[in-house]
Amino acid sequence: MDPRVREHAAVIVNHSIGVESGDDVVIDAHSVAEDLVTALHEKLADVGANPLVVQSRTGTRFRRAYLRNHDGDFDLPTHEMALFEAMDSYIAVRGDANVTEEADINGATQSAYSQARQPLLEERLGKTWCLTQHPAPANAQLAEMSTEGYENFVYDAVLKDWDAVREHQAQMKERLDAADEVRIVSGEATDVRMSIAGNHTLNDYGEANLPGGEVFTAPVPDSVEGEVLFDKPVYQRGREITGARLRFEDGEAVEWSAEKNEDVLDDILTTDEGARRPGELGIGMNRDIDRFTYNMLFDEKMGDTVHLAVGRAYDETVGEAVEQNDSAVHVDMIIDMSSDSRIELDGEVVQRDGTFVFEE
Amino acid sequence: MDPRVREHAAVIVNHSIGVESGDDVVIDAHSVAEDLVTALHEKLADVGANPLVVQSRTGTRFRRAYLRNHDGDFDLPTHEMALFEAMDSYIAVRGDANVTEEADINGATQSAYSQARQPLLEERLGKTWCLTQHPAPANAQLAEMSTEGYENFVYDAVLKDWDAVREHQAQMKERLDAADEVRIVSGEATDVRMSIAGNHTLNDYGEANLPGGEVFTAPVPDSVEGEVLFDKPVYQRGREITGARLRFEDGEAVEWSAEKNEDVLDDILTTDEGARRPGELGIGMNRDIDRFTYNMLFDEKMGDTVHLAVGRAYDETVGEAVEQNDSAVHVDMIIDMSSDSRIELDGEVVQRDGTFVFEE
Repeated sequence: MDPRVREHAAVIVNHSIGVESGDDVVIDAHSVAEDLVTALHEKLADVGANPLVVQSRTGTRFRRAYLRNHDGDFDLPTHEMALFEAMDSYIAVRGDANVTEEADINGATQSAYSQARQPLLEERLGKTWCLTQHPAPANAQLAEMSTEGYENFVYDAVLKDWDAVREHQAQMKERLDAADEVRIVSGEATDVRMSIAGNHTLNDYGEANLPGGEVFTAPVPDSVEGEVLFDKPVYQRGREITGARLRFEDGEAVEWSAEKNEDVLDDILTTDEGARRPGELGIGMNRDIDRFTYNMLFDEKMGDTVHLAVGRAYDETVGEAVEQNDSAVHVDMIIDMSSDSRIELDGEVVQRDGTFVFEE
Repeated sequence: MDPRVREHAAVIVNHSIGVESGDDVVIDAHSVAEDLVTALHEKLADVGANPLVVQSRTGTRFRRAYLRNHDGDFDLPTHEMALFEAMDSYIAVRGDANVTEEADINGATQSAYSQARQPLLEERLGKTWCLTQHPAPANAQLAEMSTEGYENFVYDAVLKDWDAVREHQAQMKERLDAADEVRIVSGEATDVRMSIAGNHTLNDYGEANLPGGEVFTAPVPDSVEGEVLFDKPVYQRGREITGARLRFEDGEAVEWSAEKNEDVLDDILTTDEGARRPGELGIGMNRDIDRFTYNMLFDEKMGDTVHLAVGRAYDETVGEAVEQNDSAVHVDMIIDMSSDSRIELDGEVVQRDGTFVFEE
């Protein structure tokens, strides 16, 4: 086994989750991640925790078979709910045999299935959890990389001194917490302002997401104004949206277009009322993520990027006096900030061409 | 996919378990059984049941890793217990990448782990369940067969007209239910008598075990008298006991020997007081199982065989007025009845050289 797999497992168990003796842990992983699942069992045995391996994530042949054969009137599985209620923590491992395994499932079935299982998601999110990535060949293929190259990419992003990351990112978190207005400017196409007054900025240093490496907050609904060109592709429902442009007025997207797959963008933005409003502003700060890999777990943390997500705002980012944007969707879209760009907080530049003021 | 995999799944879902709409089903399977797990999902979708795939069986690399690294003071996992309490039915699929994956786990650790998890086993056995086999290459190797040859063997044993099997076997069940004393004679080495008075005979036609194909009951404790040579190897704790001979007095093994691995036989028989007493008498009636494959799920149903299990008696086989043999072990051992042999019930021959009187 690649020794980095065991280091990865140690970060998950000791840092991301902080597993303690007697904890009942669920590991949700495809069999291609067997190395990581095995290393996790070593670490969980070390601390005296109780793992159970399940396979309920997207992209298995059997989940596709289930969705293809079902009449679409899905139940909430009470046994799975009982498991999640009783567990202490949840480790979700991305890693696929074929990332397009569910390419021939229709969207209505996918939606009905997700909706029936929504309480499971809520229950899981209420526990200590970690979403991470095992560098399987199919995921390397999605990233357009060799398997070994992708392994290096994943482990560089994941095996970091997360305490140092926390301290580094805290400098940006503090500035955002103190600020009322954020302005993002990039090239000619992007100039957008929003209020974050009263909301909270979270410092993601590899806990619920591994890799971590971003700070993020929520825009105040109705406050977003301006135009954005999302430079990086948005990979949704098995299709790639490129060159997406959105114009916001009073917090809502009022015009949009895309170079490719504009209909998918239409579908997303017309899901419900909240889907046209940004629910998240995130600043990518993990410079070991130096390329786009069609995987939001990595892409949104990329150094020199900012992302806005249309749709639902995370509970923890919304202040008591502020309205929380609600939606069935949460779709992250990325802006390149590496050149001809700046982030202003209350009129003061805190990042220019990808370099933060506290890094100068 | 081999079309027989889908037939196998249909037998499990429609016959063995009898899954109904809304049932919460757990499938416990190694990833090498992905074809069967996929076919099961098709059938479970057809009836509108809710599957969850877990991997808690023996023989995974991660379970070995867990057992190797643990200090041996195991907990009962409450989340796994909650899952089992909430489920309606349980499908356990045998099928391994390496049947000797746990060869370097010591026996004390295995025992401590099993003991801590005993309530999980009890809970599972209280639900509707089915144990079956997917013909993975490693299991073919254990059987000393080619993978394709083993596939044919497994599907011949599994894909049967189970209603016809039930009717055929009922002829032997009725005779055993009506009998007080059973005598098994085979060659010079085996002549053993026991009372089954007041106990019940079960007709196994592919429900909890797939393949099925036996009738079985429990000897009255203290009634077993005589000598037995077990002709087929007993595969226990990764080792093969051959040529096991046991002499019973007052229901208890008082002398024993084996040609190979006698110390393993010693370990089994000295586990506790009940381990020296037979808890099961079974008659193999599945003639499609025509060879020994080191897999008790098949071996004990082989045509022309009888088996005695030392240790725990099954609840359902023990009559109200009869003492139930209790033990931490239940080890089946097989007698060849194909030639120079007979089964007598109350002095009347019901099988001679493998042929039942109702087959003549």
